[in-house]
Amino acid sequence: MELDNINPSVLHVKPSAMRKFDHDISVDPDIIKLTLGEPNFDVPEHIKAAAVKAITTNCSHYPYYWGFEELRQAASTYYRDKFGYHYSADEIVVSVGATEALASTVKTLFKPGDAVIIPTPAYPLYGALLTLNQLKPIFIDTSDSGFVLTPEKVQKAIADHPESTIRGLILTDPNNPTGVAYTQDQIAALAPVLKDNHIWVISDEIYGELTYGQDHYTISKYLPEQTIITNGLSKSHAMTGWRLGLVFGPHPFIDEIAKTHQYTVTAAASLVQYAAVEALTHGQNDAAVMKAEYQKRRDYVVTHMTAAGFDVVHPGGAFYVFAKIPAALHMDSWQFVKTLAKEYHIGLMPGDPFGDNDYIRISYAASDEALAAAMKAIKQMVADKSRNVSKTAER
Amino acid sequence: MELDNINPSVLHVKPSAMRKFDHDISVDPDIIKLTLGEPNFDVPEHIKAAAVKAITTNCSHYPYYWGFEELRQAASTYYRDKFGYHYSADEIVVSVGATEALASTVKTLFKPGDAVIIPTPAYPLYGALLTLNQLKPIFIDTSDSGFVLTPEKVQKAIADHPESTIRGLILTDPNNPTGVAYTQDQIAALAPVLKDNHIWVISDEIYGELTYGQDHYTISKYLPEQTIITNGLSKSHAMTGWRLGLVFGPHPFIDEIAKTHQYTVTAAASLVQYAAVEALTHGQNDAAVMKAEYQKRRDYVVTHMTAAGFDVVHPGGAFYVFAKIPAALHMDSWQFVKTLAKEYHIGLMPGDPFGDNDYIRISYAASDEALAAAMKAIKQMVADKSRNVSKTAER
Repeated sequence: MELDNINPSVLHVKPSAMRKFDHDISVDPDIIKLTLGEPNFDVPEHIKAAAVKAITTNCSHYPYYWGFEELRQAASTYYRDKFGYHYSADEIVVSVGATEALASTVKTLFKPGDAVIIPTPAYPLYGALLTLNQLKPIFIDTSDSGFVLTPEKVQKAIADHPESTIRGLILTDPNNPTGVAYTQDQIAALAPVLKDNHIWVISDEIYGELTYGQDHYTISKYLPEQTIITNGLSKSHAMTGWRLGLVFGPHPFIDEIAKTHQYTVTAAASLVQYAAVEALTHGQNDAAVMKAEYQKRRDYVVTHMTAAGFDVVHPGGAFYVFAKIPAALHMDSWQFVKTLAKEYHIGLMPGDPFGDNDYIRISYAASDEALAAAMKAIKQMVADKSRNVSKTAER
Repeated sequence: MELDNINPSVLHVKPSAMRKFDHDISVDPDIIKLTLGEPNFDVPEHIKAAAVKAITTNCSHYPYYWGFEELRQAASTYYRDKFGYHYSADEIVVSVGATEALASTVKTLFKPGDAVIIPTPAYPLYGALLTLNQLKPIFIDTSDSGFVLTPEKVQKAIADHPESTIRGLILTDPNNPTGVAYTQDQIAALAPVLKDNHIWVISDEIYGELTYGQDHYTISKYLPEQTIITNGLSKSHAMTGWRLGLVFGPHPFIDEIAKTHQYTVTAAASLVQYAAVEALTHGQNDAAVMKAEYQKRRDYVVTHMTAAGFDVVHPGGAFYVFAKIPAALHMDSWQFVKTLAKEYHIGLMPGDPFGDNDYIRISYAASDEALAAAMKAIKQMVADKSRNVSKTAER
């Protein structure tokens, strides 16, 4: 059979360069990885206990595809109290992680040929999902506005693309990879231009609980009828490998997303759903301990990276530092991370898959020892390679 | 926002009528359900213990998107020993249940506009997946050939649809809803016509371990280069709610399916993958106990349904009896199951969503007590309603 004969949308999309790089460097037994967005914390004990109980009491059967009613009720209350979401249980679908939440939402809301705005740098999944669904990405570079999307930039994108029907925007707040957390004013300012132009916002709020010195503001407060929120327990409760996501939105649209979800995965695993009920009813403070640690580590990484000569975006949330490679190194992001992995046994993410080849991303959801080793290695590499560059230049 | 403006493929597909009916009748506290294809057995203890260990030892992190190497190795050996599959670990992807295995496979292999054969009656998911992916279903009725797809029927479908590019066939063996298990000759006979016409077979073998008095034969033995197998642990290890599926196929195509899978769900839940390693390394005989029970129940149900006046397909596998409603009742499948649920508190599946409105499906993956109550109620209803029909006719 001819490979050329399969779905061209699948053929044209590339596997995640991030995860491949992470996988490839993992063969090095000495590697210290600050690559994936994965908390180094364990799942809180009370949630683990709930999962164990679900297993030992044989709660192993098919959940209804929307997810357990009890879980959706718990999510309704939890996120109302946390961020002011206003969604009842029948406006919430339980998904297989935030990835499936995004995949089912993108597949449902847009028609082949529709255009969708992605502010960059951005999590690479978004672009891949657009390609897979025959949608047209319109990338908006935010590096000249503090990595914040502004209404002016949206307006300009609309004006610059008269040939396209722009029907959506994927907004990530707090942002991955930059760590930027939007202020209330910045979020509120976006609503009118999106409303006037009938643009759906898919609001990826997976890092919502991880903001430092400021609150998280959801655009659904300003634009409820045009917002679909994707969220989940991977970051707030350190449950990355458990795959528990949530989709929130106006009922008739959530009803459609639920269908796509059903025919994609049937339902999220039942034992994980029981654990999630526990997380959302008694785990309101689970993120607080992690958050305090993350904030210390953020400050540590920002300080050291700045001292090493990197321009650093000041991160108000998430657990990433996005840092501009010193020009003296004459390296793009792939050269930098490959050299650092090979010669110094430290794994970082290149900025290229996020849309900016001059930056590297550091996940500081890692131990203090790992961060100290990474900072030391990065400083060393900058020193070594700047010397080399100078020497080469001298020849 | 206008609902009409979303993806028409999603808008046109209906939510699963099966699961909705099951959900709706569940409000009756007295209902005894033989509806979903769900074992009434619990997950074997050694598998539960492995899952608990994964939780308590904090194995909660992202697995690589293909699935753990150890799990794919275990699957390679397990299914080679069971059914003669010949796939190495790099020809196997771990999915979120068989549903996601099918969804990612259909999405990857076919281009919008391609036609795919579905022999009917069939599991309704298949048709929905074709609609969602802008594919054209070509339904082949198998009720006049003992519910077995023959090469002649494939040939005729090709001749009858000169306007279509038929690029796939979704084969379910053992079959849901009929319980028919193909013989080796029947499977072997299909290979040449599929080979000659370059038709992919998506071979859904989820009930492969549940055959009675005969072996399971995989078409991949005869057509390895054109077969993608979907399988999983839901039925063989009673792990329905755990969502662990597997996709097997030639490497370059599995590589493409893995991409779709990655961008749909990231990966199957890590703790479930650890449990699956245990199932596939030490659970070779887990299905045997269930199978012996199922076979007794099958015989019991077939005997009683035949006595009650139903024409019954003799099931060689799975755990369903597909039975033709006696003509004297003058009822279609929805009328039958709704009356039985409302007046007699027994839940069965209508044949209509499977493509045959004259039949009902009974899942005998249920307790002896439930089956006895169901048989009694069905006999009673046939007696009651046949009397009514006669009385009405007399007036």
